[in-house]
This record gives sequence, structure tokens and C-alpha cells, in this order.
Amino acid sequence: MPAEGGHSRQLPAAGFAALDAMVRPRSVAIIGASDDATRIGGRPIAYMQRQGFAGAILPVNPNRATVQGLPAFASVSALPSAPDVAIVAVPGEGAVQAVDDLGAKGCRAAIVFTAGFAEVDEAGAAMQDRLVAAARRHGMRLLGPNCLGLFNAAINFYPIFSLSFEQGWPIRGNVGIASQSGAYGTHVFAVSRMRGIGTPVCITTGNEADVSLGEAIGWMAQAPEVEVICAYAEGIRESARFTAALDLARRNRKPVVLMKVGRSELGGHAAKSHTASIAGDDTITQAVLDEFGVVRATTTEQMLDIAYAATKRIYPVGNTMGVITVSGGAGVLISDAAEAAGVAMPPLPEDAQAHLKSLISFCAPRNPVDCTAQAVNQTELFPQFLETTAQEGGYGSMLVFLTQTGGSTTMAPKLRPYLKAAREKFADRLWVLSAIAPPDKVKGYEEDGYLVFEDPTRAVAAIEAMGRYGAAFAAPPAEEIVVGEVTLPATTPTEAEGKRILAAAGVPAVPERACASADEAVAAADSFGYPVVAKILSPDILHKSEIGGVILDLADAAAVRAAHATLLARAAERAPGARIEGVLIARQIKGAVEMALGVARDPVFGPVAMVGLGGVFIEILKDVAFRRCPFDEAEAERMVHSLKGFPLLDGARGRPKADVKALAGALAALSRFAAGADERLLSVDVNPLLVLPEGQGAFAADAVIEVEDKR
Amino acid sequence: MPAEGGHSRQLPAAGFAALDAMVRPRSVAIIGASDDATRIGGRPIAYMQRQGFAGAILPVNPNRATVQGLPAFASVSALPSAPDVAIVAVPGEGAVQAVDDLGAKGCRAAIVFTAGFAEVDEAGAAMQDRLVAAARRHGMRLLGPNCLGLFNAAINFYPIFSLSFEQGWPIRGNVGIASQSGAYGTHVFAVSRMRGIGTPVCITTGNEADVSLGEAIGWMAQAPEVEVICAYAEGIRESARFTAALDLARRNRKPVVLMKVGRSELGGHAAKSHTASIAGDDTITQAVLDEFGVVRATTTEQMLDIAYAATKRIYPVGNTMGVITVSGGAGVLISDAAEAAGVAMPPLPEDAQAHLKSLISFCAPRNPVDCTAQAVNQTELFPQFLETTAQEGGYGSMLVFLTQTGGSTTMAPKLRPYLKAAREKFADRLWVLSAIAPPDKVKGYEEDGYLVFEDPTRAVAAIEAMGRYGAAFAAPPAEEIVVGEVTLPATTPTEAEGKRILAAAGVPAVPERACASADEAVAAADSFGYPVVAKILSPDILHKSEIGGVILDLADAAAVRAAHATLLARAAERAPGARIEGVLIARQIKGAVEMALGVARDPVFGPVAMVGLGGVFIEILKDVAFRRCPFDEAEAERMVHSLKGFPLLDGARGRPKADVKALAGALAALSRFAAGADERLLSVDVNPLLVLPEGQGAFAADAVIEVEDKR
Repeated sequence: MPAEGGHSRQLPAAGFAALDAMVRPRSVAIIGASDDATRIGGRPIAYMQRQGFAGAILPVNPNRATVQGLPAFASVSALPSAPDVAIVAVPGEGAVQAVDDLGAKGCRAAIVFTAGFAEVDEAGAAMQDRLVAAARRHGMRLLGPNCLGLFNAAINFYPIFSLSFEQGWPIRGNVGIASQSGAYGTHVFAVSRMRGIGTPVCITTGNEADVSLGEAIGWMAQAPEVEVICAYAEGIRESARFTAALDLARRNRKPVVLMKVGRSELGGHAAKSHTASIAGDDTITQAVLDEFGVVRATTTEQMLDIAYAATKRIYPVGNTMGVITVSGGAGVLISDAAEAAGVAMPPLPEDAQAHLKSLISFCAPRNPVDCTAQAVNQTELFPQFLETTAQEGGYGSMLVFLTQTGGSTTMAPKLRPYLKAAREKFADRLWVLSAIAPPDKVKGYEEDGYLVFEDPTRAVAAIEAMGRYGAAFAAPPAEEIVVGEVTLPATTPTEAEGKRILAAAGVPAVPERACASADEAVAAADSFGYPVVAKILSPDILHKSEIGGVILDLADAAAVRAAHATLLARAAERAPGARIEGVLIARQIKGAVEMALGVARDPVFGPVAMVGLGGVFIEILKDVAFRRCPFDEAEAERMVHSLKGFPLLDGARGRPKADVKALAGALAALSRFAAGADERLLSVDVNPLLVLPEGQGAFAADAVIEVEDKR
Repeated sequence: MPAEGGHSRQLPAAGFAALDAMVRPRSVAIIGASDDATRIGGRPIAYMQRQGFAGAILPVNPNRATVQGLPAFASVSALPSAPDVAIVAVPGEGAVQAVDDLGAKGCRAAIVFTAGFAEVDEAGAAMQDRLVAAARRHGMRLLGPNCLGLFNAAINFYPIFSLSFEQGWPIRGNVGIASQSGAYGTHVFAVSRMRGIGTPVCITTGNEADVSLGEAIGWMAQAPEVEVICAYAEGIRESARFTAALDLARRNRKPVVLMKVGRSELGGHAAKSHTASIAGDDTITQAVLDEFGVVRATTTEQMLDIAYAATKRIYPVGNTMGVITVSGGAGVLISDAAEAAGVAMPPLPEDAQAHLKSLISFCAPRNPVDCTAQAVNQTELFPQFLETTAQEGGYGSMLVFLTQTGGSTTMAPKLRPYLKAAREKFADRLWVLSAIAPPDKVKGYEEDGYLVFEDPTRAVAAIEAMGRYGAAFAAPPAEEIVVGEVTLPATTPTEAEGKRILAAAGVPAVPERACASADEAVAAADSFGYPVVAKILSPDILHKSEIGGVILDLADAAAVRAAHATLLARAAERAPGARIEGVLIARQIKGAVEMALGVARDPVFGPVAMVGLGGVFIEILKDVAFRRCPFDEAEAERMVHSLKGFPLLDGARGRPKADVKALAGALAALSRFAAGADERLLSVDVNPLLVLPEGQGAFAADAVIEVEDKR
């Protein structure tokens, strides 16, 4: 279905509130309404009647006077007025006709359950094109086709045919679900409900002929119903609304936790056979998520742990964690988990440690603070451990590990008031309890403002995520990056021309000059500084080294002069007939760290730039960092720092520190170049970029710019 | 507490069944018995009376005629006969006296609750030594001191003072818990109980003055009560019983899942302040666990997921997974998880795919097999998907993803009989269901033989672990490795001497010869083949390169002769007075992959050998493999293959394949050398070992053997 991406991009770009008619309507028509509450066209009506949707429910069915007790209409045109939104549950071309009729009537939004479109075959894709065309004619918005629908529990609006409600209705809360898959979206809803997490809104996008996952996220980013967004993607189909939605969510301090499947080779196969999704390169998707502070979940459990923690809306900046434990072993386990997750656990100040030691001589007060069973037996000591640790440690998050004591019928009632008081006294901290307790006790702790996790490792992971959101929300808005217009050559340029283009753009090349005579060669070498390299220059000699056409380590003018003569003689002897244009003299660079820079064009996200260490790092370990273009020097430096091999640039193995500033400058310049160029720029490879010691610069030794021929 | 490891090693080495008196006794005395059922000396009596321990319960209390309704005895000597085991719950030296009295009476085992020993200070450590000495005098075995105790629910034996039973008693099952930490051991018990996992036996080892974690695991490895072993360790204190226990468990096909905390820097701190445990290097512990097929868990949840899966006792060899899903998205998610975990999902054969397509034209039958909602709506199709996939795919494990459908009041009753029938028909497979369902429905599926996981990713992780056990149980027993006796020099040898020793042991050095004359130098070079390197030989010149004392790339006899003269001249000029012994001629090796081999002596596990790629791999990426010495060539090759940088040896980047056989030969020889040497061997470093292309060998270019001086 190559058409739909193009179509959706051409639909009018409206603010995300434009989906209000679809998600928060005052009236809904059901095209293909069924009197049978178990059928697809009957379920939404049954759900809305049972839950009490306050707006008008308008069944359309040519064969019945009433549907589930409501007056039915014979056709769209017979409706008394235009509904805000309509559910379309009629098969095949009937759905296209229904959308056309609805548009003519003045309806502005449709939720299309009907399947058999682009997800099936070419004929279905063509029918989907007609569906979209009908909507566009009338300025209508479409959800689906081939979607499960959505719900907005805040107004009891259930245009959805999921069977999930058999097991229960949404509970109150602030976590929104946006999902490309209906089955998975309602799976997340069901698990949430079982865990007591309230999900007022769920939107499933199906084939995304119009409304994309990005727009669903964007609506939630601006809707007061939702404070936390859980999203599920198989492939991101468009960039503009997706990135705008992530940006809006970050500005509104609403965490987005996203599960994007199809990471694996295997997953790639399954994605292809499941949907016609355009699976963008996962590495690039990850770079985009990182850019907007989106936390990625790989399991539903992890997604909901994070969403649950986020319901507190406390996002510590520079997250540090204080741990109070009744078990030393658990303290070690939590420390292991914190280190693996990257959550800092600085020790308590010495005097605070001494104070705790004065309460229980054999406690371990460093952090983790092992208050031992003594502090829960002699309960009056317990609050001092809680409050001293919070007060003197100044930690952003507090994790209290009580295990079974937290559920003990004898101990828990004594400890709970102390826990409650400590949280209230330090209400700006994220307070987390790890305990094994029956549901009623868990509920009690939650009412007191605690997050409760049975497993301490899961608690640490959730705390880590809150810190990441804190950092993302606190980051200053990115400054506008000025991108000049780039004029690309008509076709892929030669290496030399490519290097000239990049040098003009701010990626300097190794100093070199084509020299027609020995005198010119010596002058060039003198201007670069020694040693230099000399290479034969001929359009007819592709593999210079095979004819001995490269001579290294030329240390002075005499050596340059001799090399010039040797190269010409070898060319005459070993490549007779080749056109000789002279000799290339280049500064010979030693002691540099070899890096690789690059630009690729992602079909969804446009140009992305890459940096990696050369050699084994990039080829075997895939140790690279990606980022959408353009970005600034500071971001380029962050990318460089994120590499596993960064120590090699930072003075490891007795090397001098490399000129990371120059490297970052070249990378940022390359990103501006790529952003300024049009879509004819296919790729850039700068490999190697030679990074000299601090203050000495970074130079491209080789560069290839690939350009689509101008038509 | 440096003493205890030594002590425990000197206790008589008995078979693991020797703990029967402690874990499966017919009578138990309680020294320090309390009439108050809430006190430490009262709880075990209350628990055993309530649960109905069939053996004799013999309270010892000098101040009471009865304890909790049982006749009490004034002293150990007043007991009618020797109890099989005694609980010691009296403080300080009283515990030492009690053990002595018990031993004199003929009691053979004691469970010592008393704290204040080696975990506190030096005085406590000394008291612990006296406790152990008292036990040894009488041939008694000790659990603890400073331990929470144990329970054996199969005989209602509860010598334990945990409060965990407030929330419930152990349920029937076959998962044993062995833990150094009492708090964490009973935490695992409590979580197990809440998850419906039966834990008949739990043993906590406290200070391990005698009975170690290894012995607790070993008892479970031979006890019919236990089929799966969950173990928790903060530091492994002794090697012999620990490795013997893991070996026995593997031979008896009992999976061991171990949580070993203290991996992190942070964790290391906490471990130190929590116990006086000897934290072995985590990397080495991991190597030992790998050796015995132990699966390591990092969270309690993961530990119990694995234990739960293992209760089925199906351990597929060459584990492959077939997936049937009602959601394409979940299929992709599961594929991602399988690839990350290393679980293979080969596609169904083409004809089987065609058959499924003939049932539902729009299904995706490759594997994951997306049977779509159609197969559960038209339920008679569902069993065909189950059985065709199991039959034609031949998968070791089958994962069925039903999400909410599995809990649906309308759908689940229709699907369950089909699921049950498929499992019964293919009963040798591991059948796993991922569903969201209320507890009663989950229980029903479990009764039908299914494992039920809400989260599909956790299901995949558990399946992966079963495959790892399958591989470990199927591996042929390791052949005995012949280790010759190694005579170490009296002190650390010179580099040259070290290389000679290793060459004799089977780690060849780069061919080289000390030459007194130019003629000798040429003869040596002729015998090695060119190019060669020449180095000045003098005990007085430490840094040869600083005086120009190394000349490379000598391509023929004339060059060798000239270099000989140059080296002598430079030495005379730049190091006058130095004693010159001649010139060293060595084969110059080019195009080799540089590896590092090494041996270290772990305080617990003895000599361990290491292999890694040289340069950045070992220094920055810590890309190394460890293994206890000795091991054979096949194991050495497996270690080499496990390196992340292995592609560099396997022809990556256009290199020829390296001589991995020679590398493995050198590594295995080094491991035999280390195993044959006595404890005076502190370490060996072979760095670099130069590995030439296939068939050309591997040679140590540098080697250091560190030996403790002979006294």
C-alpha cells in the first residue's frame, strides 16, 4: 500500500484538537447497526447504552424500525442531522459509499471497522484509496479502516467492538492508550484494569489511512483526560505528526512510553506478513524516541510499570535513589539493579550515618540503608530511618523494601502511619514501597501516596524511567538550527569533488593539492608541513597502490622531489598510455583516531546522521549513534559520548585526548548539510574522519556523496 | 572471618544425604524453648504443633515444667535420649555450651538461630570458631549460626522463626529454596506461595560456619521432595561442595536457578557492610554457573518464572518454539523477544502453511502462526492450528497467545477442550499459554498441563531457560582431563624462562634464539624464515627501544648481518658499560590476530583461565571468557567462540580465518598447566598470543608467570 502515506500527508494539517469530533462527540451514528448486541455492528450500541453515553446514538439500518430499543434510520440521508462522528460497520464498497454519504450529510469524522482494504491485497489498497478520496472530498477525518475503534470512558463513548469489557470496564485514571493494533491496545487496557491502572481513553488506528498513531498520541498530549501515554507501534508511517505529538507531550510534561515491535529479523518477517506497515529502521526510530525523551518498553509489564509510576506525576531531575531495607541481601540486589539501570545511589552524609548507627549499632547506614529487622520490631525507630534518609540524603526517589513485613497483620498496621507521615513530609519525592501484601493492604499504601511493587527490581526500573522523563522535561527547548540551502551537483560527484563540497559545508578534508610539477609538489608539502604522502593522479588508474602509485612518509623537500620522479616513472612503466595529470600531495596524518561519519535518508524520518569509531567498532560491534538532521554541536558531542568506544577518544590506553570538539563540529556541520539538501541526497559516507589530538582538528580522508541523478 | 572457610573444608566430607538428620529428623529438641509462641524460641514449637510434625518435640527450658503444652526438660542432659536435631536459640556462649552438651548427648545436628558471631566482630568470629570446634569434637553438623532456620513441609518440620507463615503455609509442590539470606529465602517462599508454586523445603544457611549453600543445594539434588532448586547467594564461600552439588543436580536432571547478588560496584559495598562474605569475582562465579548449566536470575520474578516453568520437568533439547497467536502484533512482539533471548522460531514447512491458508485464507501461517480472531470465532478451526503447528513444526515448545480471549466467559469454555486435547496428543512438548484470565480460569488451564503467563515476553524467557537446561542435561559428562604435575620455579621467572616453561607445557612461543655472533644470527634467521626481528641482548638494558636496540623487517641474511653490527655499535655508543650478551633473533610475525590468555587464582574456585582479543576488546570492552582449570580443547574453542570479537578470528573484514585450533590448543594447555601447578602459582599472562592464519599456529610473544616465593 504505497499510496496511503502520500495520501495522509496531503490531508489538511490540523491541530491535534481536530480529533475532538471523533473522540469527544455529542452524537454518533452507526452505519450497519445491529439489533444483536453480540455482533460487531451491535456491540458499540450495547456498550454505550449500558454505560450511559449522554449524546445521541443514531443507528442506521434499512431493515429495522428500531435497533436495541433505539429508533433506527433507513439511510444516512434519513438522519435528522449530521452526527459528529459515525461508526462504519458495513462491508466492502458499502463502507466507501457510507463515508461519501456521511460527508455529504455534513458529518466530519468516521471510525471505520470494515476490513478488507490495504491489509489484504492490491484491490483492497485501491478500495482504501477510494475511501480516503471520499473522505477528503468532504474534509472528513477517518480512523481505520480495519480498526477495532476507540473508547473515551470519561463520556462513556464506546465506538469499539472489543470483547474485553466482558471482563470489566475502564477504571478512573489518567493513562491513555494509543495503538496501531486493536488486539494489543485492548490487551494493554485489560492488563491495566487488572492492575488497577485507570485508562480513560484508548484509540486504535488500524490501517491508518488517515489518522495515524502520531495523531492519536498528539490528541492525548493536549487532552486533559490523559496525563500519561502508552503507545504501541508496528511501524511509524509518517514523521511530521508523530514528532510533533512527541514534542507536544514533552512540552506538556506527559510521559510517553512506547512499545515498538519488529526489532528483530524474525519480527521483521512477522510484521511484513501481518500488516503492510513500512517498518522504518529500528535504530533510527530509537534515535527519534531518544530525541523526545520517550521511554521504550519491550514488554507490556514494563510499559505498565512505567505508566503506573508516572501516574504520580513526579519526575525527579538528576534522579538519585535512597533505599531503606529490612534485608541486607535485598539491599545488595537493589544496588545491583540500580547500577545496571543507571540510577545513582550516593551514600548518606557521614553525620547522618552516625546518627542512624546511634539508633541501631549494627545497622548499615550507607545507602542502601539496612535498618535491619530491629527497626521494625522497635517500631519507633523506623520513622527516623525514613526521615533521616530522605532529609539528609536529599534523594529524588525513595525505595522502601519491607518484603513480607509490609503485609504482616501484626507489623503493617504499626508501620503504615510512619510511612504515610514520611511521604507527606517529603511530598516532592517519589516514594516507592516493595512489599508482599494482600490487595487491601497494597491499596492502603497506594492511598497514602506510595507506588507499590512486589519485585524491587521492577521498582528500580520504574524509578529509572521517571528520572529519564525528568531529564527530558527539564531540558531547555532545542534552539532553532539555521540550515542554509544546499545545491547538490547534478549527479554523484567524484571523491575529490565530494570532499570539496563537504569542506565548504564545514567538514574539513585532509589538506591536499594536485601538483603538476615537482616544484608545485614541494611548495604544497611546505605549506602543509611534513610528513606528506604523494599519490599519482590519473583518471585511468583506479587502484593506485597496485602500480606502486602511493608513497608515504616523505619527510622533507628532497624526498618529495624524489617521490614525484619515482611516481611518474612507475606510471610510465606500469600503466603506459594512462593520462597522467600530475601528483597529489597530502598531509600525512599519524596518531589520529579513525572515525566514520555518515548520512542516510530514512523513508519516514528523512535524513539521519551517524557517527561511529572506525574499524572493529563499527564493523563488528555496530557501535554507532544516530540522530535526525539537523542538530547542533552540543548534541553531536552527546552522540560521540554515547559510543561504547568513547574511551578511545578520551585518552584510554595512554593516548592523548582526541579533538572531540572538532569531531562534533564536523558531525553537526554534516547534519546541517544533509538537512539543507533536498531529497536527491541519498547518502554521505565520511570514512575515515581522522581525529587528531585536542586542538589539532579532524579531517575527512575519504568521502562519498551519493546523489540521485537530476531529471 | 578468615577462619571459617578453612574450618568447613576440614570437616568430614560426607555425602549430601548426611543432612537428613537436620532436614528430615524424627525428633527435635529446642534449646531455649519459649512458652510464648511469638518469641523466637517459641515460634518453631507453635508452627510444628499447629502443622502436626509427627516426630518428638522436646523443649529444653530450665525454668518451666511445660512449654506450649509439651513436657519441658531442664537441660540437654535431662533429655530422655539424643534428638536427631536440635534448635539452638540461647544467646552468646550459651549456644556454644548447648552444642557441646548436645554433642555429648549423641545429637548429630544443630540449627543455630543465635546471632552475634562472625557477622558482628572479631570477638564474635572467635566465638564462632569455638562453636565449630565444639561441633567437630562430636562429629556434629551445624546450620548457621545467625540463620533463620529451615522448613520441610513434607513432614511438617518447622525449625524456623520467620513470621512469613502469618500470611500462609507452604503449598504442595517440588521447588526447593536454598538461601544464604533468611529474609530473602522466605521472601522467595512468600512470593512462590502467592503465585501458587509449591515449595516443600527451604534451607537458610546464615553464617555458614559448617553447612554451606552448596551443601543445601546438594541435599536437594538427591532428595526426592525436590525437583527444582531456587538458590540465593551473596558470596560463594567454598568450591568443593558447591560444584559437587551443581554437578549432582545436573546429573539428576534438577534445574538450579540461582540469584547471586553483589554484581555491581555498589552491590559490592553493600555486601561488605552486610555480611562478612567473601565475594568471589562475579565473572568467575558466572563461569562456574555456565559450566554446570545453572541459569542465573537477576530478579525474584525471573527466578520464579523459571522455577514455575521447570515444575513441568520438560527440558527441550535444541529448543525451538512454535507460536500460535490471535494477534499479529503480539506475534511480532514474541518474535522480537525470541530473537533477543536466542530461542529459534523456524518456519512451518510450506505444505503445512498451505494447509492453514486453506482453512483461513488471510491467516499468516509462517511462525508465528497468526490464526487471527477467525480461528477463535469459528472455533472448530482452532484445534487444526494447534495440532498442525505442533505436528508439522516439530517444535520443542508451543506458545499460544490468546490474551483476553483466554479469559473470556463466552470463548474460553469453547477453546479449553481443544487446548487440552492438543497438549495431551503432544505431551512431550512444553505447552505455554499467554492469556489474561481470572485465577479460576488460569487454574483450569494449569490443571490441563499448561503453563500460564500473562506476559508473553516472560513466557519466552522461561521457555529459553528450559532449553538451556535441556542442553545442559543432554551434554555428555565431561571427560577426565589428565593433568601432569607441574614443578614451578622457586621464584617468579624471567620472561624468557617463563616462555620456556609455557612452551614445554604446550603454549609455543614465537621462535627466537640468542645469538653470540653475526653468523649465529644469520643461521637462526635462516632456520625461522624471513622476515626476522633483531634485539640487543643485555641484562643492563631494560628499555631496548630507547637506545634503538630493536630493528624490524630484516628480509634477508645481509640485512641480519648489518643489523647485528648496528645493534652492537648503538649499544656501545648509547649504553656504554652495559654487559652485552649478543643479539636476539626472532621470527617477525605479521598478519596475526593478537589475543590475550591468562590465569588467575580465585580464592574460592582456584585457578581460572581467561581468553580475550587483545587491544580495545579486552581493555575497553572487557570482552573475555573465563573457565575453571583444567578444560579440554573443545571447551577452549567454545570459549573463543563466545567472544563478541570472534568474527575477527573468523574472517571478518576480509582477513584470512585465524588458526583457532592452535589458539584453543594453547588455551587448553595453559589450563592444564595451571591445574597441575600448586597454590604458589599466582597468575600467568600471555599477552599477546599471536594467532596466525589457519594451519600456521599461535605463538606467545610475551609471557609473565607470577609465582609465590618458595619458603
